[in-house]
Amino acid sequence: MSRDTPETGTIYLVGAGPGHPGLITRLGHQLLQDCDAVVYDDLAPYELVAELPPNIVRYYVGKRAGRHSRPQKETNSLLISLAEKGLNVVRLKGGDPFIFGRGGEEVTRLKEAGVPFRIVPGVTAVTAVAAGAGIPLTDRRDAAWLLMATGHEAASASLPVPWEEIAALRGGTVVIYMGVGALPEIVKRLISGGAAPDTHAAVVVSGYTGAQRIVTAELADLPRSCAEQDVQPPALVILGDVVKRMDGVGWMQPGVLAGRRILITRPYEASAEICGILRK
Amino acid sequence: MSRDTPETGTIYLVGAGPGHPGLITRLGHQLLQDCDAVVYDDLAPYELVAELPPNIVRYYVGKRAGRHSRPQKETNSLLISLAEKGLNVVRLKGGDPFIFGRGGEEVTRLKEAGVPFRIVPGVTAVTAVAAGAGIPLTDRRDAAWLLMATGHEAASASLPVPWEEIAALRGGTVVIYMGVGALPEIVKRLISGGAAPDTHAAVVVSGYTGAQRIVTAELADLPRSCAEQDVQPPALVILGDVVKRMDGVGWMQPGVLAGRRILITRPYEASAEICGILRK
Repeated sequence: MSRDTPETGTIYLVGAGPGHPGLITRLGHQLLQDCDAVVYDDLAPYELVAELPPNIVRYYVGKRAGRHSRPQKETNSLLISLAEKGLNVVRLKGGDPFIFGRGGEEVTRLKEAGVPFRIVPGVTAVTAVAAGAGIPLTDRRDAAWLLMATGHEAASASLPVPWEEIAALRGGTVVIYMGVGALPEIVKRLISGGAAPDTHAAVVVSGYTGAQRIVTAELADLPRSCAEQDVQPPALVILGDVVKRMDGVGWMQPGVLAGRRILITRPYEASAEICGILRK
Repeated sequence: MSRDTPETGTIYLVGAGPGHPGLITRLGHQLLQDCDAVVYDDLAPYELVAELPPNIVRYYVGKRAGRHSRPQKETNSLLISLAEKGLNVVRLKGGDPFIFGRGGEEVTRLKEAGVPFRIVPGVTAVTAVAAGAGIPLTDRRDAAWLLMATGHEAASASLPVPWEEIAALRGGTVVIYMGVGALPEIVKRLISGGAAPDTHAAVVVSGYTGAQRIVTAELADLPRSCAEQDVQPPALVILGDVVKRMDGVGWMQPGVLAGRRILITRPYEASAEICGILRK
């Protein structure tokens, strides 16, 4: 191979965890420090990118870039072109790449383009939210299974979530990602499918952060309780007997700065340290 | 408070991830370095404990201690007595503390005893196995939900997994933890519940390690294929259309040492480094 055609770089799909910068894995963090470029969006913790050595090139592909959402196609093309330049790239994704993260679609395109890739799993939102709220999702006293589903249907609508049939399953825990908007409809379908109206239910807002807030109700009352308490995304819905064991733990209690927006008047690269202090 | 009655220590239930020592979170790893004592079992990666500073006291509560399994009750009592001595303790658990890990039972006892605790989530086995095998568990082209269940029923058998009803759900992915022993029975029940006999199925053995091995088959043939290929635990079963997108990635291919047991002739405390080199 001549020096003019660099070897194709590798794309590392790294799960950044659910938002807290300490919840990325050591392996993922090491790959971040060693890469040539990082491609990240709103779901990856800000500090992880801000604290990187200045020689690592950063590409932001999130929603704040002036439009609703960058098309997945553009992100795929960016990854491929960076790899073809010989760069090793971390594609930093919130949570875990293969749990509701479109990691599969990115992998498909990389395979088609012949770009080597590796996948580093991450802590998915559901386990972090359960940890922060103190809800043991699969406590064997209450649950023999755990089902995770999205609250907004896939774009194609060809794969709807079978809420009525899910409602008929006994002895487990149901977690709904991104379910706030469709909550009235989902609850209606669950109850019509046979779920007890008094099923234990919790909505955890901004889980595992200083702004964590939990709304609990019986299933039938959950949409009204959420409306009354103005629940906004990001939030996760947990249904089942395990909710009654809930015990929000000490460090997840809201601090004095909870829910406030803080403007840090420092250059981007120098802001990670103060972010870390404020988080504590 | 007099100096003779130390303040009660805190128990940190930390998810160590699925076995690879790089898959613990940075937060969990930091807590490990800063604690007074660590209580660990076979599910926590060996290197994480071996590399700790010598002043941290280690308590092994796993199966190799000469009996089948240390009763959960003894582990709970140990945690409480350490905390009451004023020690901060990391209870290092494989995977995530609240996914099939009995974390809920430990929390219940700590609450009853008035011992403060915190929970640090971890990468659960299912996402690591999916990453290693290249199976996008919730790819929206194939799956709108993901269900995780144990293959061996809870001790009480009061909460059986409703396999027949699960088989009736369409458009998602089913993952079975610890399902090798009961696989013939589970497959029979799934098919009698309406699962297509040609459902895509994979069993991933020793996922996300150098010894990773994958057996694929149609659902109806899976037990026979596993028997023929002598599949032994730990293994995870994945069922659904996402399996057809499987693509084991480069670093998960078996190396020359795959499956071999290696005796390291160094003191316990000095063995972590060579373990790390061998893993690569």
